[in-house]
Amino acid sequence: MDLQSVMGTAGQAAKKMFRGMTDEMQMCIQNCTLCYQICSLMITHCLEKGGAHSSPKHIQALQDCAGACAVSADFMIRGSDLHSRFCGVCAEACIACAVSCEALADDEMMKTCADVCRRCADSCQQMASHH
Amino acid sequence: MDLQSVMGTAGQAAKKMFRGMTDEMQMCIQNCTLCYQICSLMITHCLEKGGAHSSPKHIQALQDCAGACAVSADFMIRGSDLHSRFCGVCAEACIACAVSCEALADDEMMKTCADVCRRCADSCQQMASHH
Amino acid sequence: MDLQSVMGTAGQAAKKMFRGMTDEMQMCIQNCTLCYQICSLMITHCLEKGGAHSSPKHIQALQDCAGACAVSADFMIRGSDLHSRFCGVCAEACIACAVSCEALADDEMMKTCADVCRRCADSCQQMASHH
Amino acid sequence: MDLQSVMGTAGQAAKKMFRGMTDEMQMCIQNCTLCYQICSLMITHCLEKGGAHSSPKHIQALQDCAGACAVSADFMIRGSDLHSRFCGVCAEACIACAVSCEALADDEMMKTCADVCRRCADSCQQMASHH
Repeated sequence: MDLQSVMGTAGQAAKKMFRGMTDEMQMCIQNCTLCYQICSLMITHCLEKGGAHSSPKHIQALQDCAGACAVSADFMIRGSDLHSRFCGVCAEACIACAVSCEALADDEMMKTCADVCRRCADSCQQMASHH
Repeated sequence: MDLQSVMGTAGQAAKKMFRGMTDEMQMCIQNCTLCYQICSLMITHCLEKGGAHSSPKHIQALQDCAGACAVSADFMIRGSDLHSRFCGVCAEACIACAVSCEALADDEMMKTCADVCRRCADSCQQMASHH
Repeated sequence: MDLQSVMGTAGQAAKKMFRGMTDEMQMCIQNCTLCYQICSLMITHCLEKGGAHSSPKHIQALQDCAGACAVSADFMIRGSDLHSRFCGVCAEACIACAVSCEALADDEMMKTCADVCRRCADSCQQMASHH
Repeated sequence: MDLQSVMGTAGQAAKKMFRGMTDEMQMCIQNCTLCYQICSLMITHCLEKGGAHSSPKHIQALQDCAGACAVSADFMIRGSDLHSRFCGVCAEACIACAVSCEALADDEMMKTCADVCRRCADSCQQMASHH
């Protein structure tokens, strides 16, 4: 099975399992999951670049964002009432991380990471506004 | 933006960011991520069904699988040398969870969960066999 | 080495490593860590008891509290500026979990869990009030 | 309440809750928990030191160790049969991290971290040998 089919099959299974949720929440789970993955990957990437990219402040922004996204996704998936509270904090972490990435955006990966963070922040702010 | 476009955009960003990895590893990350999501969701679903579905043994199988998948995905995303060791344990957790779900497969969600676990186990076994 | 010495040696190492932090934060890290451990253990305990103890609502309260405590401890240990925001949400999760445990407090473990949650909530509220 | 009393009260609550476990497992949970905390803290410390301390290889060793310890503690606390398998992988991560810290041990914190990792590795190897 190739990557395309895996993604397709995964998408269908996710769609079936999450159908009890609003589209907005399903989107937010996917945005948080992707943002967690990208930020985790970027820590390794930025440490390899070195210099300002491996500054404690930038790496912490990536760690904060990855951690906040993982916990927000978890609370949404489990259907917890507290999810909107975590989404609110997550939106802050995502914006801080986007700002940090934009200041260092000297390659395609940094720019993509900033975009993913911005999109996730919007999605989380929407979820947070429901409470 | 609708769910379809979010999934599409997410898929493209993931593809761009993960291109340094083998297709096999990218597939395993997606399989582990989906399996973690589904098993976490199933804990809530099975507690609501009650009876054998909320037995300590079955819920533990779901918790084990969710936890093992999350950590395997994390070690692959970060590019750690230890990922294949975690994938090996994860394959065991996935099979045990599939067996537990199949024994209670009285609705569509239980069957989908078992399928997702089996697919993730195969993927993890392949990754584990490289070391 | 026995358990007593392990705890003693661990306490000394922790004290040495965390000395850059305020006492208040060190206490909150320990309270969150213990509360995460106890709530995770209680999920297994409550599923074994069955009945109201394994209701989706109660298990979710325990999962919420364990998850919130783990992430709060993590953000404090890493020295993130966002720790107080997570401590605020964590205090809510701890209180909800204490209330849920108190309503079912028919054994020593349930009572201890409620106490640990109340203590952790106080500690987290203090941390949250700094921002 | 001061830090000393918090640690004391926490120790008593943990003792009461974990009494169904062997002393060996209780020690391993405490060793893994401490090792996770110290390694997480050391990531921030090493990024601040810079140079070889913030090399991708060393930070990854700390991330691997923190992640492996957190998951091992989690599987022991939940009473999962898979705990010994995770403890086996965790012992490897702890040794690799100790080696990496010892090669850079130019301050008290690096030395303490290496010691904590070695002690955790021993504890995990013992747990892993039971299966």
